[in-house]
Parts: sequence; C-alpha cells; structure tokens
Amino acid sequence: MNIDEFVERSLGKWRSQRSAHHLAFRHFEEVTSNVEILPLENQDERVIALCKANQVDPHLASSPFYMTWEGQSDWDEDEVFSGSTVLVPVPDLENPAKGKLLREQGYAETVPAVGHYQLIEDGSFILNTLYERAAAEEKIWFATSNLRFRVSLIKTGGGTGVTTASFSSEVRALNLDD
Amino acid sequence: MNIDEFVERSLGKWRSQRSAHHLAFRHFEEVTSNVEILPLENQDERVIALCKANQVDPHLASSPFYMTWEGQSDWDEDEVFSGSTVLVPVPDLENPAKGKLLREQGYAETVPAVGHYQLIEDGSFILNTLYERAAAEEKIWFATSNLRFRVSLIKTGGGTGVTTASFSSEVRALNLDD
Repeated sequence: MNIDEFVERSLGKWRSQRSAHHLAFRHFEEVTSNVEILPLENQDERVIALCKANQVDPHLASSPFYMTWEGQSDWDEDEVFSGSTVLVPVPDLENPAKGKLLREQGYAETVPAVGHYQLIEDGSFILNTLYERAAAEEKIWFATSNLRFRVSLIKTGGGTGVTTASFSSEVRALNLDD
Repeated sequence: MNIDEFVERSLGKWRSQRSAHHLAFRHFEEVTSNVEILPLENQDERVIALCKANQVDPHLASSPFYMTWEGQSDWDEDEVFSGSTVLVPVPDLENPAKGKLLREQGYAETVPAVGHYQLIEDGSFILNTLYERAAAEEKIWFATSNLRFRVSLIKTGGGTGVTTASFSSEVRALNLDD
C-alpha cells in the first residue's frame, strides 16, 4: 500500500462512531459524526498555499485531499461540531512508504500541523504529530473497502504519557442514505 | 518482539475500559473491567490438559498463561460478569513470530478455541480465530509498559463482514489500588 492507494481508498462519505477513553478518570465519551473525504488537484490553490506555508515544492505533493466532518458528542448533545481541513501528503523521495502530512488544521490542537506518516507491513497508516503542548499518534487501517478504523492517542508534550485514547469505526455511507 | 516477551509484558493486573461499536445500529456499549494475567508453568496440569485436547506436545508450549476478568457493561449495570481461561501459545517451529494460541474459552463464543497469531513489525500481536458461527480478529499492542490497547473484531462466519468492533484501553493497576 502506498499513500496514493491509501488516500484513494479513503475517498467518499463515512459514518463514524468514535469512543474516547479519558484514561486518568476512566471516562468514556461517545461521538457520532459524518465525514467526507474529497480529492484535490495538486494545482488547487489551497494545496499550493499549504505547501508554500511549509516551504514544500507543490510538485512533491501526492494525492492531496480535503476532509469535512460534522458530529455530536454525548458530553454535549445540544451542540453539533463541524470542521474541515486541507491535507497534503509529501512522500519522502528516498522511501515513499514514509513522508510528511501537512494539515491546515491539526487533530490535538486546531492550528496548522506537520505530521510524519509511515505505511507499515499490515497496511496501517501511522501518523505522528508534535504540537506545542501535546503530541498525537494516529493509526488508520481498513478492515474492508467499506470499513475503516482509526486509533488516535493524545500524548503529553514530551510524547511519553497517553492522556486520551480514542477509537473510530468508519462505515462507508451508501448513496441511498445521503 | 517474540511471544515470550509479549506475554511477559502482559503479566499483571490491568484496569480496562472497553467500547464496543455495534456497527449495523451505530450503537455504543461501554464496559469497565479488571483483568489479571498470571504466568503458568509448562508442567501445569491445566496446560497439559489443553495441549492434549488439541493434540499438541506440551513441550512446544511457550509462556502459557491464565487470565481472569470481572467487569460491568452500561447495557446491564446490575450485573457483574466474570470469567477466566487458560491460554497456551504454541510457536511455529519454522517461524517463531507466528503460531497457534490454544484457549480453554474463546472470545466470540465461550467454547474452546484455537487461534492463529502473528507478531508484526510494529510490535502488534494479531490473532485470528474461527468459531462455528463467527470469526474474531484481535490486535493487541503496547503504548508503554503500563498501557496496552486491544482492538477486537467480531466477523460473520465467512470472516468477511464485521458486526462488532471494540477497543480496549488497559492501564496497569498500581499495587496501591489493589
């Protein structure tokens, strides 16, 4: 699996169930959301802008994409959260199974972020991102072409302790339900 | 990581948070439990009995162990469930990163089960088990020596569709809290 295949398999609409485990207090949080992942052209101005902001040649981008989400947590059922971000993979020239992932908006903190990804033997995509006050590790893999899983860890700044572990099951939305 | 190291790291008492995603209905289930994993001797009569029941030479067993659990689901808060089982890894002679795992009691069905495990590049332990009416795939890995994660999938008999995906965060219990 290379990054282009991984993005290709991820395109589309997904219905997500996410459980967050807040480890210190043994608390659970349940989140349901709808996620959409759309391909972008390398020439798209949002891709070029994100590359430039990171001093990356836009020709080195591979399968850039755009992600939107809208959902609800059982911690605050009255509020619907939503967001979107541009993501740009930049494979390493020497080893295309690894690379950088540029994001307009991060996961642990809502600021621009640069993560380092790796595609491993079993087809999992692993992404490590250092933020100012935290670190995140995400692992995404496909069970079938219509079922994707994601484990996300939020770590303390040093990257040693895990404060929150969350698990998402993402089922491809059928056109009928759109 | 070999199976002996993996079992060694797993020994002890763990406090577990588990979230099950029942995919068809987008339902969540929250389970908290206490798990204890204890080493067994190859000569232990429970190990010998389980090997014999599976026509395995007990000398081929590696790091057999005993697991007990006690917990509660938010689907039935009045009931405490509990159980225990003997587990016996039997590494392949040609490739010790793979092997069989004999269980007195299975995960998807409470009957004796034989799974096939594999330890992969990133240190994850992957276990596939076929049952009579279902199949299970479990993936277990350590974030730190005191934090273990487990993703368990229950699949339809043919092993293609996933009906339930669950995620456990297991935090090592300190002696102070015992």
